Amino acid sequence: MDSLIGYVHGYSEREARRLGDQADTLSELLHADTAYPAGATVLEAGCGVGAQTVHLVAGSPGVRWVAVDRSAESLAVARARVTERAPGADVRWYEADLYELPFADAEFDHVFVCFVVEHLSNPGRALVELRRVLRPGGTLTLIEGDHGAAFFHPDSAYARAVIDCQARLQAVAGGNALAGRTVGPLLRDAGFAEVSVRVRTVYVDDSRPELMVDFVLDTFTAMIRGAREQAIEAGLMTPSDWDRGIADLRRTAGEGGVFHYAFFEAVGVRPS
Amino acid sequence: MDSLIGYVHGYSEREARRLGDQADTLSELLHADTAYPAGATVLEAGCGVGAQTVHLVAGSPGVRWVAVDRSAESLAVARARVTERAPGADVRWYEADLYELPFADAEFDHVFVCFVVEHLSNPGRALVELRRVLRPGGTLTLIEGDHGAAFFHPDSAYARAVIDCQARLQAVAGGNALAGRTVGPLLRDAGFAEVSVRVRTVYVDDSRPELMVDFVLDTFTAMIRGAREQAIEAGLMTPSDWDRGIADLRRTAGEGGVFHYAFFEAVGVRPS
Repeated sequence: MDSLIGYVHGYSEREARRLGDQADTLSELLHADTAYPAGATVLEAGCGVGAQTVHLVAGSPGVRWVAVDRSAESLAVARARVTERAPGADVRWYEADLYELPFADAEFDHVFVCFVVEHLSNPGRALVELRRVLRPGGTLTLIEGDHGAAFFHPDSAYARAVIDCQARLQAVAGGNALAGRTVGPLLRDAGFAEVSVRVRTVYVDDSRPELMVDFVLDTFTAMIRGAREQAIEAGLMTPSDWDRGIADLRRTAGEGGVFHYAFFEAVGVRPS
Repeated sequence: MDSLIGYVHGYSEREARRLGDQADTLSELLHADTAYPAGATVLEAGCGVGAQTVHLVAGSPGVRWVAVDRSAESLAVARARVTERAPGADVRWYEADLYELPFADAEFDHVFVCFVVEHLSNPGRALVELRRVLRPGGTLTLIEGDHGAAFFHPDSAYARAVIDCQARLQAVAGGNALAGRTVGPLLRDAGFAEVSVRVRTVYVDDSRPELMVDFVLDTFTAMIRGAREQAIEAGLMTPSDWDRGIADLRRTAGEGGVFHYAFFEAVGVRPS
């Protein structure tokens, strides 16, 4: 396990697999437009277990990648994943803190940050540090989900409660499960220019049963379910209410069900 | 005033103006793709004060329109609006109940229903009646917003509470402010085929101050604000909490603010 106590999703092998599955399902949605020019040096800040990394390297051949994470254990998983799935990729790996990066000013052409600031108690400070290592004119891309965008049919107060629990636990750990809506303001406040935001909406209904399984069950519900023990220990919900909430969430992936979610992507430029 | 007691938005002149402003702001988003072929006969079911009608007729020249509403007062406003803004349009106006339409089977080539089923206690029954008057192979288009998609930055428990109040009052009146997520299931359950759903997401931040005013203040907050007296009379919120919620909603349209909303559009075909 890792020193980053507050990481609400945990560091288990099962969790690493979940994050990998999630990235596979979402990669088309999130990264279809993410391509950097050959020869560029790009920093992935907070690469975790490499769930996004394998898609980034596939989408941008010829890029020199630098991947940073504060967890040595996650880095080892990421490295193995990239070695297996993209053996020719040029990636250097660094164990480092996002608040204090071991890089010179303006060392990178671009910076990519996905599902990271939701776990940071001071995302603004991290973004200022990332701006420091970015060259003037280079871009920073920031992607986050937002649990406020999670709604579904059939609606269920229990299902809403388990999502709310997970968000509250993440807040207690210093993070923010509602980070998606803040990506634009975060970049502007950290001194980036030309900030643009895109919403990547996920709408799934029973006309797409595979996406229902991938996204609603194996991605979203799996992530919420990971907070069960913490939620019950903290007295936020009873075990039976919790289990009903999870069952109701799973129900939305069944016949006649609908699930809505949204990811937010902000891109900003370091001013000259 | 009208016999439809449960219409939560009310029937005042100010409300008619709000609905008109709202449709102008949203028309590009909602109706840019809505075009029917010249010569077709199209029913707008629940035209209200004609807020959508003026955009529909502008987008589909040569169509023979039939507009129905159960409120004679609303129809008069709609007729005046269309006469003023689209004097050449071919529109016949009927005061009628959606549950029992004064039309023969299969009389229409297409049917258009926007911001209507949110007010109906039995939308399924209305859709079956609309299917009856639609020819086999004709389409029905169903558009609804969903207050579950309303979230913002800065977040505020008071702002969430006023939205929740409005949704609860609409539910008490037999409607559903969360109808957007149900448009697909509603069409499938009513026997439509080839049902497809599109999400029309509204994301506004302070890089678009005019849209902030139009959508956040003059459309969404104006609509919520209309429920103030009912919410306070019903004891759902105190006047000061209510006013703080409205102020916090308005705050999201200011510097650094973000507002997210979503409309859902389902299109289905009447099977042969």
